[in-house]
Amino acid sequence: MSTTSPGPAELAGAVRAGDRRALAQAITLVESSRPDHRLEAEALLGELLADTGGAVRIGISGAPGVGKSTFVEAFGLELLDHAHQLAVLAVDPSSARSGGSILGDKTRMAELSRHPDAFIRPSPAGDGLGGVARRTREAMLLCEAAGFDVVVVETVGVGQSEYAVSEMVDMFLVLVAPGGGDDLQGIKRGIMELVDLVVVNKADGALAEAAHGVAADYRHALHLLRPARVSWTPRVVVCSSLERRGIDEVWASVRELEAVLRESGELDHQRAEQAVTWMWTEIRAQLLDELRRDPAVSARLENLEAEVRAGEVLAPEAARRAVRATRSHSETT
Amino acid sequence: MSTTSPGPAELAGAVRAGDRRALAQAITLVESSRPDHRLEAEALLGELLADTGGAVRIGISGAPGVGKSTFVEAFGLELLDHAHQLAVLAVDPSSARSGGSILGDKTRMAELSRHPDAFIRPSPAGDGLGGVARRTREAMLLCEAAGFDVVVVETVGVGQSEYAVSEMVDMFLVLVAPGGGDDLQGIKRGIMELVDLVVVNKADGALAEAAHGVAADYRHALHLLRPARVSWTPRVVVCSSLERRGIDEVWASVRELEAVLRESGELDHQRAEQAVTWMWTEIRAQLLDELRRDPAVSARLENLEAEVRAGEVLAPEAARRAVRATRSHSETT
Repeated sequence: MSTTSPGPAELAGAVRAGDRRALAQAITLVESSRPDHRLEAEALLGELLADTGGAVRIGISGAPGVGKSTFVEAFGLELLDHAHQLAVLAVDPSSARSGGSILGDKTRMAELSRHPDAFIRPSPAGDGLGGVARRTREAMLLCEAAGFDVVVVETVGVGQSEYAVSEMVDMFLVLVAPGGGDDLQGIKRGIMELVDLVVVNKADGALAEAAHGVAADYRHALHLLRPARVSWTPRVVVCSSLERRGIDEVWASVRELEAVLRESGELDHQRAEQAVTWMWTEIRAQLLDELRRDPAVSARLENLEAEVRAGEVLAPEAARRAVRATRSHSETT
Repeated sequence: MSTTSPGPAELAGAVRAGDRRALAQAITLVESSRPDHRLEAEALLGELLADTGGAVRIGISGAPGVGKSTFVEAFGLELLDHAHQLAVLAVDPSSARSGGSILGDKTRMAELSRHPDAFIRPSPAGDGLGGVARRTREAMLLCEAAGFDVVVVETVGVGQSEYAVSEMVDMFLVLVAPGGGDDLQGIKRGIMELVDLVVVNKADGALAEAAHGVAADYRHALHLLRPARVSWTPRVVVCSSLERRGIDEVWASVRELEAVLRESGELDHQRAEQAVTWMWTEIRAQLLDELRRDPAVSARLENLEAEVRAGEVLAPEAARRAVRATRSHSETT
């Protein structure tokens, strides 16, 4: 943000009016880790808070190779046909290493990215999952304030990113595909707990039959496991993103689940609980940030970690020393 | 601890010598939440640190109704037959509500609890999972210092307790059984990620055939999911704790996995990483404890939570207010 950038109220007005450039600028602001930008970002979000919450929030996860971009494009075009406005955001802590996926996603979702009712915002290079998740959550709220009524948050499922995404969305889809190695084919085990809908992609050409076999396998596996929601049993849908078949069925299932969650009050309840969890996550993050930023502590932390790893100091004792180091430091300054 | 209780060095000596009363007293000390006891406990653990690490640490989870106590008793007697010394600890955050399971567990594991080479310590009523997990971890170290070479940490799998247990053990067993409602039968979905060994219990009488069917189902489900370890593919073993059949096979699998983990260096690596994770968990817990204990903050937290839940304040802003409240408070006192 330069010194000529608009203030929070002005920027909020432009976002609210659906101005794409203002939205992009607002997201850049919430993505910044500069402390002064952070305060501006919080002021902006405060202005827009009443305008948020209007979208159905859909998490989509899929390992590399399952055709996630092709699916999101087909899925997006399907719901644009139904006169919805779609924002696609990405949570990808690995992009910090690979240098960002900004060009990649837009290239892969060529048709969607050119559509006036769609907005695609890949995840920027970030400072780990916590930072990426916080910014994605805030970007989602900005998209809602700008009038998008469907927000897709996608992740490649690195580390704990599915959990982070499930904590900010209303429902969670996992994309799988037949073929490929075991690693591409399987759902990471812990993710089964989060799944509302398993989408088996690539049901076309030589893989069509295999896709239905994979679907049967997942139906069976889901049947063995306790459903996470009282009001919804996880479902398996087969589709071909390439040939745009079955995509309408995925969208219909999403709408059905949305209706169930709204009618049962689960949607509001879940969002309220997510907000409280988010607050505690932020409190922990802010306290830990303070600790890490303290130069007196950060110098000691490396040694303490090494001692704990080597079994020379027990974790609670090491933790106490680290916390004490901040306190004694801040008392003397 | 009364004023006549032994000092850390003396108590450490008695624990090291295998004195059961001293061990029980030491565990009571680490379980205490009194700040002065906490410092004594850390001093004691510091004394004994070099004597820890000698046991194979086994996590066992199983929903109510799968016959967990009967299994742990049969499993324990099996390895006592092989001249091992066994400690059984429980992580059960629900016992805080039910008033503790102290009599229950010892009654259910009658033969094991009377055996001179076994030590059973149910979880006390506690202050939530974090507290119970911290104390169980420390109790485990005390048992190792006292010479036990197998430690079983069991949990009924309430909430996140399996994750807490998996973060302190070398391997994770899940006990299931045929029959019962879906809730009793199924593994909680997220737990599949942690499982090294699924033990299908109750393969006796009318349920024998069903147990083998359940085993086939779990083998199939595990086959669909990506294994969590490179060096080990999760295995399914069928047994009857009642008739003590198949228990030797469970124990053989445990030994085999232990050998694999030791040879690959995974055991040491995993323990070192668990220790570092524990340190960061303790740092977060201690920082959060400070925040919560601050009377100026705790009064505000309730309002902030309500405002966040109602969507009136955004989580990061509420978190900032809470953290600021501590800082301004501690600056003025």
